[in-house]
Amino acid sequence: MWNLIPALDCSQLLSICQLHIKGFNPNLTSSSGHRAACSQKTMADQAFVTLATNDNYAKGAMVLGQSLRKHKTTKKLVALIGPHVAEPCRRVLESVYDEVRLVDVLESGDTAHLALMKRPDLGVTFTKLHCWTLTHYSKCVFMDADTLVLSNIDELFEREELSAAPDPGWPDCFNSGVFVFTPSNETHEKLLAFCSENGSFDGGDQGVLNSYFNTWATADISRHLPFIYNLSSIAIYSYLPAFKQYGHKAKVVHFLGKVKPWSYSYDAQSGEVKGHSVAPGLCEVQPDYLRLWWEFYSGAVLPALLEAYGDTPFNTGCVDEKSHEEIREILTSTSQAASSSTSSSFAPSSSSSSPPPPPPKVPSDERKKRWEAGQADYMGDDSFVHIERKLDSFLK
Amino acid sequence: MWNLIPALDCSQLLSICQLHIKGFNPNLTSSSGHRAACSQKTMADQAFVTLATNDNYAKGAMVLGQSLRKHKTTKKLVALIGPHVAEPCRRVLESVYDEVRLVDVLESGDTAHLALMKRPDLGVTFTKLHCWTLTHYSKCVFMDADTLVLSNIDELFEREELSAAPDPGWPDCFNSGVFVFTPSNETHEKLLAFCSENGSFDGGDQGVLNSYFNTWATADISRHLPFIYNLSSIAIYSYLPAFKQYGHKAKVVHFLGKVKPWSYSYDAQSGEVKGHSVAPGLCEVQPDYLRLWWEFYSGAVLPALLEAYGDTPFNTGCVDEKSHEEIREILTSTSQAASSSTSSSFAPSSSSSSPPPPPPKVPSDERKKRWEAGQADYMGDDSFVHIERKLDSFLK
Repeated sequence: MWNLIPALDCSQLLSICQLHIKGFNPNLTSSSGHRAACSQKTMADQAFVTLATNDNYAKGAMVLGQSLRKHKTTKKLVALIGPHVAEPCRRVLESVYDEVRLVDVLESGDTAHLALMKRPDLGVTFTKLHCWTLTHYSKCVFMDADTLVLSNIDELFEREELSAAPDPGWPDCFNSGVFVFTPSNETHEKLLAFCSENGSFDGGDQGVLNSYFNTWATADISRHLPFIYNLSSIAIYSYLPAFKQYGHKAKVVHFLGKVKPWSYSYDAQSGEVKGHSVAPGLCEVQPDYLRLWWEFYSGAVLPALLEAYGDTPFNTGCVDEKSHEEIREILTSTSQAASSSTSSSFAPSSSSSSPPPPPPKVPSDERKKRWEAGQADYMGDDSFVHIERKLDSFLK
Repeated sequence: MWNLIPALDCSQLLSICQLHIKGFNPNLTSSSGHRAACSQKTMADQAFVTLATNDNYAKGAMVLGQSLRKHKTTKKLVALIGPHVAEPCRRVLESVYDEVRLVDVLESGDTAHLALMKRPDLGVTFTKLHCWTLTHYSKCVFMDADTLVLSNIDELFEREELSAAPDPGWPDCFNSGVFVFTPSNETHEKLLAFCSENGSFDGGDQGVLNSYFNTWATADISRHLPFIYNLSSIAIYSYLPAFKQYGHKAKVVHFLGKVKPWSYSYDAQSGEVKGHSVAPGLCEVQPDYLRLWWEFYSGAVLPALLEAYGDTPFNTGCVDEKSHEEIREILTSTSQAASSSTSSSFAPSSSSSSPPPPPPKVPSDERKKRWEAGQADYMGDDSFVHIERKLDSFLK
C-alpha cells in the first residue's frame, strides 16, 4: 500500500502516516525509524496498556492501538500478551505498540505463579494484574482489547488510581475495561494475595478489582470516569434516550458481551459486516461502531497481518475463502478508492471508502414503531438469533 | 380481620398493628386514634413522597406505604395523586399515608398549568415535579410507586438534594425512582421553566431532572446513593455475579420496565403469582421480590380495598372471577394460617403463609446451563413472550 503514497498530497500522507505508522512494517520488532519521522512527542513515562491472550484478542489489540495512534496519543503503547499469541500476530503487535511484553504466569516462578497454583481458574486475571509491574511508567491507562478509541483520551492521565467508569450492569461496580492505575510492585503483590485469598466474585478481573478497590462507589467522585470513556454497546439499547442525548460525546466504545467484533466476518469489497445490522431506530443516532472497528481492521491491521503471515493460512475475518493475494488486491483497490474520495468523519483516514451498509428492509423509524407496538419482525431483523445474541450480551 | 386480633398474643398484635395500622380502616381519612396507640415517633418535618396517577399506581403506592410502615419509618408519608384515582383508592391511600394531596395540574391555574400548556406531553412529569411544593417539610425522599422497601431507609434523610442512585441503563444518569430533595417553591418554578424550555430527553421526569441537576455524575460522591437503595430488577439479570455478591444488601427494589407487579395476577390461596417464574439460576440467590410485593398487597392492601369498594366491582388482581366475599374468606383463612405459623423472613408479618411457588419445570441450574449453551427453551420458559417482556423492560 505504500506504493500509493506518492499519489497523495502532504496532508494525506501525514494523516495515513499517523495511522499506519507501525502497521505496515510488520517484520520489524521496532519501527522506530518510521516513528521518528512522523510520530507525535510521546510522554515516555505514561502508557496505555492492553492485554491479548490469544490471536483474536491480539487483533482487537491491534485495532485498539491503531485507534489510539489515529487520535494522536502522546503516550506510549504497551501490549501484554499471553504465550498463546502466534508469532506473526506478535510481530504485528510489535509494529503497532511501543512495547510488547510476554506474560507467562506459568513460567514466571514468582508470586503470580504461586497465586495461580492456588486459583487456577483465575489465569487470565493474574495475567491482567501483571500490568501493575510496569513500574518503568509512572501512570498507565489499561484498556481491554475489545475497546475502540473514538477521539484523543490522553486527559485520562490526569486522574489517579483507581479511576474507572461505572458498569452499566451493576453501576456501583466499575467496569474494568478501562481504568487508570499506578504501576507498583507492592500493589501487584497485594492484589495477588487478595485474589488468592478471596477469589473473584465474577470469576474475572472485574470482580477482584472491585473487591480490592472497594471504596470506588463511595469515596471520591474524581475516580469516576465519565461513562463516555467506556461506553458499552449494551447501554445503547438499555436506555436509548440517554444514548441519543449523550452518545455523541462517546470517546471509547467497549464491545462488551460474548459476541466481539472479530466474531463477525467482513466483506472488504462492500465494507459490509456480515450478520450485523444496526438496531431499529439507531441508524440515525449512532455511528456504527462495529463497522468502524472493521474499517480500522481492514484498513490498518489486515494488510500487516497478510504480510506477517505470508503464505501461512490464518483467519483473516473476511468472507469467502479468498487467497491472501486476492484480499491484498481488494484492499489495494478499495484504498485507491479511498484516496480519491472523502472518508466518513469517524473512519480511519486511509480506510476503505466502503459504501454505506444496505438500507434495512423496513425503514428504521417504521421498525422502531412496530417494535414498540410489539410487532417485532420475529423471522427477520428481530429474529431469535439476533435477540438471543443481544441477550447473550446481557448474560455475560 | 380485626376480629382475629383477640386470638393473637401481644407481640403478634403489635406486629400486625404496625403493618396494618391504617390499612384496615379505609373509611377514615385520618386514623390518628389507632396511630397514636401503636406508631413510632414520627419526624414531622421530613417525609417520604410518592405519586399515583391512576388506580394501578395507587395500588403500588399502597404497597410502598405499607412496606415503609412495616419497616418502622419515623417519617411522614405523603402521596400525590392525579385526578384519575378513584375515590375508594383515594380513601385507602388516606388510610396508609399521613397526607394525600390531589395534584391536578390542569386545574391549578399556576405556573405548572402554564408549563403544561406549552408541553402537554409532559403531564405526569409536571405532576411529579409538584413534590417540590411540599414546603411544610424540610426534606423529602421521593419514591416511585413501583418501588418496594425491604428495610428501614430513614438514613436517606442524612443526604442532601439531589441525591439519587445511578441508572443501570446509562450510569452517568441517576434513576429518578428514588431521590432526596428539598422542597422549595423557587426550585419548583425553576424546574418548570427548565422543563418548558428544554423538554425532557426521555419524555419523562428522569430526563428533566438529570438535565437540571446536571452535575450529579461529576460533582459530589455523597449525592450518589448506593445502588441498593434503588435496585432495579433489570440489574439482577445484567450482571448476575454482582447481584449475588451485593444483592442481599438491597434496601429498595424498583420494578423498572413496562411490566409492573400489578400487571400480573395472584392466586391468594396458593400465594402464587401467575405468569411469573423466577429466572434460571436465581431461585437460590434472590428473594422473590415480585412475590413479596403480592404478599404485601394481599395481606395489607387488598382487604382495605375490598372494604372501600364494598360491592362495587374493581380489579382485585386475583385470579378467577371470585366475589369480594369469596376473596375475603380466602384472605381470612390464609391470615389465620399465618397467625399460627412462622412467616418467611421478608414477608409482611401478617401476610399469608403461602406455600413456596411450584418448582420450575426444569431445575434452574440445568436451565441456566442449557441457556448458556444456547439451548434456550424457545417454546417454553424462554419463549418469545417472556424474552420480549425482558427486552421491553430494557427498552423502557
